[in-house]
Amino acid sequence: MEQTQFLLPHEKVFRDPVHKYIHIENRIILDLINTPEFQRLRRIKQLGTTSMTFHGAEHTRFAHCLGVYEITRRICDNFARNYPSKKTGDGLWNDDERLVALCAALLHDIGHGPYSHTFEHIFNTDHEAWTRQIITSPQTEVNQILRHVSSDFPEKVASVIAKTYPNEQVVQMISSQIDSDRMDYLLRDAYFTGTNYGTFDLDRIMRVIRPYQDGIAFNIEGMHAIEDYIVSRFQMYQQVYFHPVSRGMEVVLLKLLQRAQFLYHNQQLTDEALPQLLVPFFQKKISVTNYLRLDDDALNTYFNLWRDHPDSILRDLVHRFLDRHPFKSITYQPEQIDLVNKMRDWVKDAGFTREFYSALNNSFDLPYDSYDPSSKEPKTQIELIQPDDTLVELSTKSDIVSALSGHFTGDQRLYFPKEMLLDPQNRTLTPYLQNFQEHINNNSLVN
Amino acid sequence: MEQTQFLLPHEKVFRDPVHKYIHIENRIILDLINTPEFQRLRRIKQLGTTSMTFHGAEHTRFAHCLGVYEITRRICDNFARNYPSKKTGDGLWNDDERLVALCAALLHDIGHGPYSHTFEHIFNTDHEAWTRQIITSPQTEVNQILRHVSSDFPEKVASVIAKTYPNEQVVQMISSQIDSDRMDYLLRDAYFTGTNYGTFDLDRIMRVIRPYQDGIAFNIEGMHAIEDYIVSRFQMYQQVYFHPVSRGMEVVLLKLLQRAQFLYHNQQLTDEALPQLLVPFFQKKISVTNYLRLDDDALNTYFNLWRDHPDSILRDLVHRFLDRHPFKSITYQPEQIDLVNKMRDWVKDAGFTREFYSALNNSFDLPYDSYDPSSKEPKTQIELIQPDDTLVELSTKSDIVSALSGHFTGDQRLYFPKEMLLDPQNRTLTPYLQNFQEHINNNSLVN
Amino acid sequence: MEQTQFLLPHEKVFRDPVHKYIHIENRIILDLINTPEFQRLRRIKQLGTTSMTFHGAEHTRFAHCLGVYEITRRICDNFARNYPSKKTGDGLWNDDERLVALCAALLHDIGHGPYSHTFEHIFNTDHEAWTRQIITSPQTEVNQILRHVSSDFPEKVASVIAKTYPNEQVVQMISSQIDSDRMDYLLRDAYFTGTNYGTFDLDRIMRVIRPYQDGIAFNIEGMHAIEDYIVSRFQMYQQVYFHPVSRGMEVVLLKLLQRAQFLYHNQQLTDEALPQLLVPFFQKKISVTNYLRLDDDALNTYFNLWRDHPDSILRDLVHRFLDRHPFKSITYQPEQIDLVNKMRDWVKDAGFTREFYSALNNSFDLPYDSYDPSSKEPKTQIELIQPDDTLVELSTKSDIVSALSGHFTGDQRLYFPKEMLLDPQNRTLTPYLQNFQEHINNNSLVN
Amino acid sequence: MEQTQFLLPHEKVFRDPVHKYIHIENRIILDLINTPEFQRLRRIKQLGTTSMTFHGAEHTRFAHCLGVYEITRRICDNFARNYPSKKTGDGLWNDDERLVALCAALLHDIGHGPYSHTFEHIFNTDHEAWTRQIITSPQTEVNQILRHVSSDFPEKVASVIAKTYPNEQVVQMISSQIDSDRMDYLLRDAYFTGTNYGTFDLDRIMRVIRPYQDGIAFNIEGMHAIEDYIVSRFQMYQQVYFHPVSRGMEVVLLKLLQRAQFLYHNQQLTDEALPQLLVPFFQKKISVTNYLRLDDDALNTYFNLWRDHPDSILRDLVHRFLDRHPFKSITYQPEQIDLVNKMRDWVKDAGFTREFYSALNNSFDLPYDSYDPSSKEPKTQIELIQPDDTLVELSTKSDIVSALSGHFTGDQRLYFPKEMLLDPQNRTLTPYLQNFQEHINNNSLVN
Repeated sequence: MEQTQFLLPHEKVFRDPVHKYIHIENRIILDLINTPEFQRLRRIKQLGTTSMTFHGAEHTRFAHCLGVYEITRRICDNFARNYPSKKTGDGLWNDDERLVALCAALLHDIGHGPYSHTFEHIFNTDHEAWTRQIITSPQTEVNQILRHVSSDFPEKVASVIAKTYPNEQVVQMISSQIDSDRMDYLLRDAYFTGTNYGTFDLDRIMRVIRPYQDGIAFNIEGMHAIEDYIVSRFQMYQQVYFHPVSRGMEVVLLKLLQRAQFLYHNQQLTDEALPQLLVPFFQKKISVTNYLRLDDDALNTYFNLWRDHPDSILRDLVHRFLDRHPFKSITYQPEQIDLVNKMRDWVKDAGFTREFYSALNNSFDLPYDSYDPSSKEPKTQIELIQPDDTLVELSTKSDIVSALSGHFTGDQRLYFPKEMLLDPQNRTLTPYLQNFQEHINNNSLVN
Repeated sequence: MEQTQFLLPHEKVFRDPVHKYIHIENRIILDLINTPEFQRLRRIKQLGTTSMTFHGAEHTRFAHCLGVYEITRRICDNFARNYPSKKTGDGLWNDDERLVALCAALLHDIGHGPYSHTFEHIFNTDHEAWTRQIITSPQTEVNQILRHVSSDFPEKVASVIAKTYPNEQVVQMISSQIDSDRMDYLLRDAYFTGTNYGTFDLDRIMRVIRPYQDGIAFNIEGMHAIEDYIVSRFQMYQQVYFHPVSRGMEVVLLKLLQRAQFLYHNQQLTDEALPQLLVPFFQKKISVTNYLRLDDDALNTYFNLWRDHPDSILRDLVHRFLDRHPFKSITYQPEQIDLVNKMRDWVKDAGFTREFYSALNNSFDLPYDSYDPSSKEPKTQIELIQPDDTLVELSTKSDIVSALSGHFTGDQRLYFPKEMLLDPQNRTLTPYLQNFQEHINNNSLVN
Repeated sequence: MEQTQFLLPHEKVFRDPVHKYIHIENRIILDLINTPEFQRLRRIKQLGTTSMTFHGAEHTRFAHCLGVYEITRRICDNFARNYPSKKTGDGLWNDDERLVALCAALLHDIGHGPYSHTFEHIFNTDHEAWTRQIITSPQTEVNQILRHVSSDFPEKVASVIAKTYPNEQVVQMISSQIDSDRMDYLLRDAYFTGTNYGTFDLDRIMRVIRPYQDGIAFNIEGMHAIEDYIVSRFQMYQQVYFHPVSRGMEVVLLKLLQRAQFLYHNQQLTDEALPQLLVPFFQKKISVTNYLRLDDDALNTYFNLWRDHPDSILRDLVHRFLDRHPFKSITYQPEQIDLVNKMRDWVKDAGFTREFYSALNNSFDLPYDSYDPSSKEPKTQIELIQPDDTLVELSTKSDIVSALSGHFTGDQRLYFPKEMLLDPQNRTLTPYLQNFQEHINNNSLVN
Repeated sequence: MEQTQFLLPHEKVFRDPVHKYIHIENRIILDLINTPEFQRLRRIKQLGTTSMTFHGAEHTRFAHCLGVYEITRRICDNFARNYPSKKTGDGLWNDDERLVALCAALLHDIGHGPYSHTFEHIFNTDHEAWTRQIITSPQTEVNQILRHVSSDFPEKVASVIAKTYPNEQVVQMISSQIDSDRMDYLLRDAYFTGTNYGTFDLDRIMRVIRPYQDGIAFNIEGMHAIEDYIVSRFQMYQQVYFHPVSRGMEVVLLKLLQRAQFLYHNQQLTDEALPQLLVPFFQKKISVTNYLRLDDDALNTYFNLWRDHPDSILRDLVHRFLDRHPFKSITYQPEQIDLVNKMRDWVKDAGFTREFYSALNNSFDLPYDSYDPSSKEPKTQIELIQPDDTLVELSTKSDIVSALSGHFTGDQRLYFPKEMLLDPQNRTLTPYLQNFQEHINNNSLVN
């Protein structure tokens, strides 16, 4: 059996502020952690520009991946102890699946690049595709270690992450509306940002989670803990992930990378200013090796070198990013789009290149959704197990989840330099600034 | 009065996991935080290589400096409310000192470079001297902002940090055996490493701290909170700061930077491998501007570029550092130094360059010391105020502090590659390895 | 000014697990705490029978009252520092109101009897009326101390609690949809039960609360903290206050007291079994002195003495209460009332006196409500202050509050002895039990 | 095997603020909890009069006993999983011992009476003897349930508590210098008092504890967690258990019970004032049934009834106790005993009966002690297991434990009515009071 063959003689532990300890019992897991590909995640922040708003949030994808692994390990332990499968198809847990679950949990984010979403947007990369490639390419150490288990093991692990693995219990542990990934990041992001909105009772959920036929379900006595998780998720999106100032830094980063790309293609990013590790991305010829060399530190270092660059827009955006001068923002409604465009014109009139100094940014999230087969990406709904062993969908039992269910939340914002908000007592206020400011009230666009 | 002149119309806050909120009431403080010099501290980890052992410990000097500021602000608030000076020399608190105290607290670490202690050791820099220079050099933004207060204000702030400022109360807030700096780092390092040894009751200490004649003292009812702080400090040193694995990474880093310096002076670190931002350090011609351009990210990025360098020692050390393969260690006693040297010879015999692959590393700390005028650096002792208003020194009242007082603690270790500890069941164990291993028992050197 | 006249030379503190410290600055407050009337609250549990379900919840009304006082004190401190009134009618805070607010906060629950709601139900007492009487009757020490402030001060304090005091800011601090009372009990009950649902960010709320014209409002930046409070309140009701097992103990207590009353009036509770301190309640001749002599301990002691009483129903109910054998329950819908009655008949058929061995118990709560002038008891709604200083009602801005607003939540249950649920494998199952059990599925009544 | 025979079909849990959940897997344990003898512990506070100083400390022996059970259960789980005995005498864990260990843990305090130490002192009872009797007397439900396991099982359980059980591993789990009992009460008392001195890393200790030959030992990697536990224990004694104000209430209680006893024997405690449940104690004819009828509530209720008693000393002491007016105290040195006696004379001269209004009270504790076979009660020392599997005694490895080891700590105090400390500005200060006060400085007796 895979999971006993590689047992370490003594369990190893990592101290972790969220789970207290990460417990490693299997040599394969320990060896995966020690690969350069996995260690690279120490140099990629979990929340990108959010640390510019919440200065504690310097935690890395390395820590998060260990956390997802640990939660998955606890679920497997619980399942193996309390719900061991006796025969195929009995809907219980087959502990032969443990190792593939643990490896998928550990590696699910291994393809993340620096400042993920912004970076992907500019360079059109996809961290999920890279995760798959890092796991299945023979040139990575991760792949070599996984092959110690069996030659098709890397493919198996990749298919769990791709949600095509046949055992739905394994897939749902790692990707569903309540999975190890989300549970870890909510708790971890709450801890490191110092907000307490993201906390919920993980121990309680660990006690009520159960394998159930083709997936995972929860004993109904634990419903309030699940509710609390849904509410926490909702609040973290509102309070942290959608924070307008972090998005203001993200917009600056986006514009900065766009400007660098533009300059590169105009041969203005050369010699000492040439970002060697970024060149493959500018040229859209990216190998696994190139991809894995890049991290947050490299981007910041290039930005630092560009502080003296002759291009004043690049220099200015670098300064705004490294020295933390986020773009400001206001909310607007879809029907105000013409006025939004006027506002962007006034930004230009005030002397800023419109393309690099104004932006629209939307953020929307669905806190929970019951199953809708007609949706493009139907979500796995959360099922509760009643005393008579029948299932019931969460939102039919929970007032609060029902209230939040299927209800999009978020806002759309116009971003611009804070210079547009010059103190109105300043006598030299130009007509452009005046026009601009007259359309803002309570941080919203007004007609 | 300095501190009211610059009051912000609305207090600003930063979310902080340790203090919940950092409160900014003064424009000077806000402007200092927004300087490039202060923002750079976001890219310098508080604990250097410790994050390789405690993966949560990615917190930065930026966060720590805000924390020291916040504790100092709370002390000033307490002093101003409860112990306001009525006339010069009454030993109470003159709130005109608040702004200089706050600025010194905020800026006390601004001269720290990347991976502080290791870096200073190699390049012979001194973060305290740099702190002074950054504060007093007219070319920094920090200096310009401080000069808004008065032309001699930068010098005043620098003198607080240098402990030459005439008001001892201000000096002791920031540097004494129980000061804002230590209180913040113990709490912060405990939070981010996830150890709970560093926690003590800051709120209680904030209630019993008092200005007292030429310094600071504590109401005796708070003695147990002070004891707890001393014990926490002791435990954090033992558990975190002296952790042998972090020191094993520090040794690798030291050797790596030494090798890079060696190669630079031998013209082997050129072209794409040339670390532009490090060159002034190799050449020992460092300006404030050069100094401030450097951060942890730059070092990591150069290391990453050197993964392909032709020098095999550099390549190997880079791999050990970035991919986390710390040197292993054993403790030894001073009288075993000859055997230690033999051990280092066996490391060489096993094929490793002795200079770059073995090292001695000592760590010793004094948890608390009562005043000893004959000592080279006499420490300010901690004084308790009794009900009849007389002072008494802490260790005379506290059994536990008396037990720890004046008692050095720590260990000395020999570091070497983990390859020296190859599994003894391995048949091809060379005689060198065999000799080496025979002198190790319970992680200590044995004769 | 009232509040400075009575200042203590040194602040006194009480250690408190929820607020860390309760700070007493005023002699009147300290003297009120030291009265027998207030000390009696140490012997009245905050949550009555809930400690039978959550064994940590042994905390008392004494602790809660100190907590409400402390939150009120913090609000006053904030108001006095940041929003001091300059002239009458400016809608800001007049700190002359501090002492009346603090006294009302401290004393708001002083009229509570043992096992409050159950006791009031049986003996038709009203803790609010008793609170008023204890404050205004010249024979209490509380009254005498309040009169040190001024002869009409007791009446003022009582009118704050009765919500008839003219200054609405003072009234709303202590009674509104987000007041010191609720904030303390949610945090305190969460702490002592060991649930984490009741936690919210009190510090944040303390920073955004403001006096506003005729009441209290909150800066809109703090909206998420208010949301979190509403959600916590909702969850505590669902998880703790409405817990079916605690209600099962409450039902036993109710029946026990009813039986005792019945026996008293039948001259069957005499001699050693006579509960001296309860006699005035049985006879409906209750003086302030009688009322204040009673506490939880007295009731428990009488129950203990009745363990040997000749009446078998009293003995049995005492045993169920003291040795914790709660009645069991199922939920039902209003339209099932006929079936409910049949179920109660089957309880009787099984050998239990219907009146003392079955009961209906409903629990419903409104998590938040916006103002509805047509309602019988219109609630003060929660108002947010926007950047342009206009007010907006909470549920119009908050998705989650809007979802919960005006939405009753709770259930109705039928209670009965657990003997009705005898294991069905028991062969001697009578037809009554069989009928009874056939109408239960998933803890609900089924037709 | 005992422990599988009685397994519950579904684990039952109790919410606990300290351990989050108490897990019950065995029907015997659940049945023991449901006995009247065990439920009585809900009405006995864990810390007696300490709740008068720390108002949160209302927690009961019921909660503590569940906690000791839970820690023991976790140790057994760890031992069974990681150190299962293969053959007799291998020094590993035989899981057949689990049930006896769990029962002993749960029941170890079942013989505690109300306000333990004071009560025992007055009535010469011994809670350990009562524990044994409750477990072994056939008339208790506890005994009947234990006999379901086997007829000699009650004796076995009692012998574990008496430390005469042959398996030393079981004995040391529950009674040694680091056992389930102490670990629970330190954590629990810290939680409910709201002090944070008592916290240490239980999870870490649970990971490093091991069966070892004839007892229990700890892996040396966990040494710092053990140190922290020793320090916490030290601090809780200093800060909480020896608190002079709680001892001031204890002294009042002692005098109050002595007075009641005196009055009973003088036929002055009769009719309505007769404390039925105490009579057997006054008469020294105590049966198990009498003993188990008594609890804190009964004592408080009798005290309440005595508020109107004709004896003015009894009335006054009742008032001091119920309304919390502790005796005040000063420390003294053994050599000052003559002066102490003079002070007591001045108390008498001031109008207080010397016997009932002055008292000496000592408190001393030994934080840790290594084994000393010559001591009257030699303590089990704490042993660490080194990498080569040899044992080493804790204080030889730990600087801080070595500092505290064998070092008694505590103080001796003279207690007296606070009236002896009348404000010296009071003109009518009698010569007795003046003499008395002149010998007090900094809360200590001075010659």
